[in-house]
Amino acid sequence: MPDVQASADARRVAIDRVGVKDVTYPIRLQVPKSHGGGTQTTVATIAMYVSLPHYQKGTHMSRFLEVLNEHTGGSGAGSELTPISPKDIPTLTAAIRERLDAEEARFTAEFTYFINKPAPVTQSAGLMDYRVSFECVSVREGGRTGTTDDFIMGVTAPAASLCPCSKEISQYGAHNQRCLIGARVRCDTTGGKGPLWIECLAEIIEKAASCPVFAVLKRPDEKWVTEHAYENPKFVEDIIRDLAVALNAEPRITWYAISSENFESIHNHNAYAEIVRDKRA
Amino acid sequence: MPDVQASADARRVAIDRVGVKDVTYPIRLQVPKSHGGGTQTTVATIAMYVSLPHYQKGTHMSRFLEVLNEHTGGSGAGSELTPISPKDIPTLTAAIRERLDAEEARFTAEFTYFINKPAPVTQSAGLMDYRVSFECVSVREGGRTGTTDDFIMGVTAPAASLCPCSKEISQYGAHNQRCLIGARVRCDTTGGKGPLWIECLAEIIEKAASCPVFAVLKRPDEKWVTEHAYENPKFVEDIIRDLAVALNAEPRITWYAISSENFESIHNHNAYAEIVRDKRA
Amino acid sequence: MPDVQASADARRVAIDRVGVKDVTYPIRLQVPKSHGGGTQTTVATIAMYVSLPHYQKGTHMSRFLEVLNEHTGGSGAGSELTPISPKDIPTLTAAIRERLDAEEARFTAEFTYFINKPAPVTQSAGLMDYRVSFECVSVREGGRTGTTDDFIMGVTAPAASLCPCSKEISQYGAHNQRCLIGARVRCDTTGGKGPLWIECLAEIIEKAASCPVFAVLKRPDEKWVTEHAYENPKFVEDIIRDLAVALNAEPRITWYAISSENFESIHNHNAYAEIVRDKRA
Amino acid sequence: MPDVQASADARRVAIDRVGVKDVTYPIRLQVPKSHGGGTQTTVATIAMYVSLPHYQKGTHMSRFLEVLNEHTGGSGAGSELTPISPKDIPTLTAAIRERLDAEEARFTAEFTYFINKPAPVTQSAGLMDYRVSFECVSVREGGRTGTTDDFIMGVTAPAASLCPCSKEISQYGAHNQRCLIGARVRCDTTGGKGPLWIECLAEIIEKAASCPVFAVLKRPDEKWVTEHAYENPKFVEDIIRDLAVALNAEPRITWYAISSENFESIHNHNAYAEIVRDKRA
Repeated sequence: MPDVQASADARRVAIDRVGVKDVTYPIRLQVPKSHGGGTQTTVATIAMYVSLPHYQKGTHMSRFLEVLNEHTGGSGAGSELTPISPKDIPTLTAAIRERLDAEEARFTAEFTYFINKPAPVTQSAGLMDYRVSFECVSVREGGRTGTTDDFIMGVTAPAASLCPCSKEISQYGAHNQRCLIGARVRCDTTGGKGPLWIECLAEIIEKAASCPVFAVLKRPDEKWVTEHAYENPKFVEDIIRDLAVALNAEPRITWYAISSENFESIHNHNAYAEIVRDKRA
Repeated sequence: MPDVQASADARRVAIDRVGVKDVTYPIRLQVPKSHGGGTQTTVATIAMYVSLPHYQKGTHMSRFLEVLNEHTGGSGAGSELTPISPKDIPTLTAAIRERLDAEEARFTAEFTYFINKPAPVTQSAGLMDYRVSFECVSVREGGRTGTTDDFIMGVTAPAASLCPCSKEISQYGAHNQRCLIGARVRCDTTGGKGPLWIECLAEIIEKAASCPVFAVLKRPDEKWVTEHAYENPKFVEDIIRDLAVALNAEPRITWYAISSENFESIHNHNAYAEIVRDKRA
Repeated sequence: MPDVQASADARRVAIDRVGVKDVTYPIRLQVPKSHGGGTQTTVATIAMYVSLPHYQKGTHMSRFLEVLNEHTGGSGAGSELTPISPKDIPTLTAAIRERLDAEEARFTAEFTYFINKPAPVTQSAGLMDYRVSFECVSVREGGRTGTTDDFIMGVTAPAASLCPCSKEISQYGAHNQRCLIGARVRCDTTGGKGPLWIECLAEIIEKAASCPVFAVLKRPDEKWVTEHAYENPKFVEDIIRDLAVALNAEPRITWYAISSENFESIHNHNAYAEIVRDKRA
Repeated sequence: MPDVQASADARRVAIDRVGVKDVTYPIRLQVPKSHGGGTQTTVATIAMYVSLPHYQKGTHMSRFLEVLNEHTGGSGAGSELTPISPKDIPTLTAAIRERLDAEEARFTAEFTYFINKPAPVTQSAGLMDYRVSFECVSVREGGRTGTTDDFIMGVTAPAASLCPCSKEISQYGAHNQRCLIGARVRCDTTGGKGPLWIECLAEIIEKAASCPVFAVLKRPDEKWVTEHAYENPKFVEDIIRDLAVALNAEPRITWYAISSENFESIHNHNAYAEIVRDKRA
């Protein structure tokens, strides 16, 4: 059969990224021993792209899925799934780059991650869901022998924000609302610094809010979260700044992109803030 | 060219509904004089279905769009758009039924509708957006001469809810959040009762919340909405019941399906309640 | 602390359904031995509701989550998750009804389920993702001793549809597109009939399409699916009818609600058909 | 009342962007005479942000909405809406920057735009919907007197793609599917070059596909689009390259970011390609 993709192209237009997106796939995460060990299986939405030189007509889309299969479980969806750590993602991304014979490959996965988070007073058990992303770029350099990797981990946590202005000007009460706070970070874990796991980043994020949210709250807990939020009023600007201050103080983090979106309970639109900072610059 | 759709089918399976969905189309609403008159142009998501008898292979999909064109503006998208009132929807639905030669036709349109809603204290101008739906069924009865129509209008309004339990048990503050309150209603406007317009239903819905939301709020307004919500604590159950009581008292409404979804600021899940009631039953 | 929810209500409005929705939770499915055994862990979106009598002010929302925890894994998200079968869902739903002391409880869960589905010619390994739903209602009857359950399982499968009219009237080619075909079914598995598992329903659904879709297709596979679809042209009406005929022939199924939505490659809107049938009526 | 937002902040963290997002608002577009003149009213999703210096606690969120009101219609939603052209967007963005007293302001609006597009053979009337975006950044420079603007217009058009490999290797047929092709462009319209309107960009985009899509197609039209797509097989790579070649040839365009997402009819995932190019670099 003719290999149409491998034929020559005369338009002289290189393509930055080409590949597959919205691939729904199971992944099994290796939880570090410091956070209880074991594994957690979840469902990821995955994108995989490569750069395509101007002279090649097309990429071979099926190979992306083949590499994914090989690194995640050989197309089983149960206990045969291979446990994966963030450190495996550059390996997977480089394998895509090599199999597709490309200068550059990109891999991103987004998935739900659960953390056992007891209620603040009664300690009632409950699972909180976070959205986590792994993003990686692998680039071939210097005559096919050198490569560089870039890995970004992201965590988005739901939380509560309570408006300082509303509290200050009102006789009683203060408008508050659910917000989504996100942090994508690059880390340097050389020199004996251990890796930053999802739980660590989720914890840093939640401290920046007026109050964290929980899956199960009994009445003593509800009293606690109500009063805790009222005692910690924060604009969307305060949340993002407190998060920046915390990430500035974390030595493993070298770069971050953070945002908070507050689903205002007094409007039908949202308040939003974001900061991107390269600590090495 | 052969008309494949018109050929015979031997499977003996009648189809309840077949047609087109997710049609994006402009519509121009005639605003009644009682609400300021004029027109409002918006973008609707439309579905149109007919029933198909067991002996016919397929329906003619392009005819749905042709009927829609003829009733909304002849495929212009500017001032040539035909102003439409709720009373035109049964006419349009019957036209679909007739053009497709079907026993039954269904039409639904969902769109954003704007209401000029000044801030509660400063009267600052602002536009609030509501989601509105028109749903209609037209059925042929009794030897092709008789028909019956069924028309449902729906309005979904964003609002604020403040938790009575949180207020009661906490020393200060109370968790509150945005909620979406929806009402779909059937009306009887015979006997001199005028029609129920979108604004009327939106107003009834908003009164059932702890506080309405606004597009523009200056500080005196923010103080007002904060305190107003605190003075009107409501569970999702209270919102839905207060709305039911109000709709029970509105003589034009003969049937309703109502719901409230509260985006809890203390959880990452939502509280929800719904009631369906036929007042004539 | 006062129990505000338990206080009396004077509005005389009973609530059909009240509870929590959009709860994101991990579930671990027990795969039957007939389909390979083992378990599959996935992420579900869950809703849990009860009916509320007119005289009670509110329901106790945290109890829904407590019952969910107890039946799914005690808030662990790894290997401590309890394997669940469809037969456990009525037990869970009845537990919600009892814990909330309600006449009626409803439980619905939607999740992604993966099936290992080799490519049609090369047998290349690949995982296909399906959306599955479990819906259950538990009703208390006759002096608190009798109960009835209603359980519905749903599977939505992506597939391909190829237009018979386009094929018939064109000199070459035929427009085709991805479609989503869904079936929700009630089963009677008494009298020695074994249960209908997800794979069985997915297989029935896919046979109704012009061609199934796959995760990995090499060139010989792509040739096969292209030609297979061309040899099986189907309108959305044909898909839904062929699916109805297949479900009529499956003795375990007593009721079904089926639909197909075709994302037409020649329009920016979708073709859609649906049938609901109670085989016992 | 105290102005909490205006108070000092000691954290020494400047904020890149803070403001409001997901604002739903009506806008009325001035259609140029070259494209029929008149106006088209639609519903936009708007975001408005400013940069915030490290020493200021918060921005004044209500002012964003006030500026929007003043420039779009004074909070009327009917004929009182002010007709807007792309050239008004930098003015609006600069007004936000000035009212909020910021170094930088950003404005983005996304909306549906309709184009009357007759069927290719029968010329049957039909309206096609496109997603359009306006993005603008206004920066204060050099002692408050100089400013620079950056304006990007984007159009996303649905179309059809037909796979060259599938056509080449199969005895008959070829898989095809709906795709979404997007182009965001910066233009230089100095030196007598007229502006590039939405229709121009939509037309360029559609020519890059295997075939455009239409709202209404009768049988002679369906034959035409089927055969036209079959005669123009294109990978996602071909679509993006042909679009790049066309934008390279358009002298008004100085920069573009283009993408195509193909909803493969043989997979449950999508093929995707993108190119960003600065023609002045």
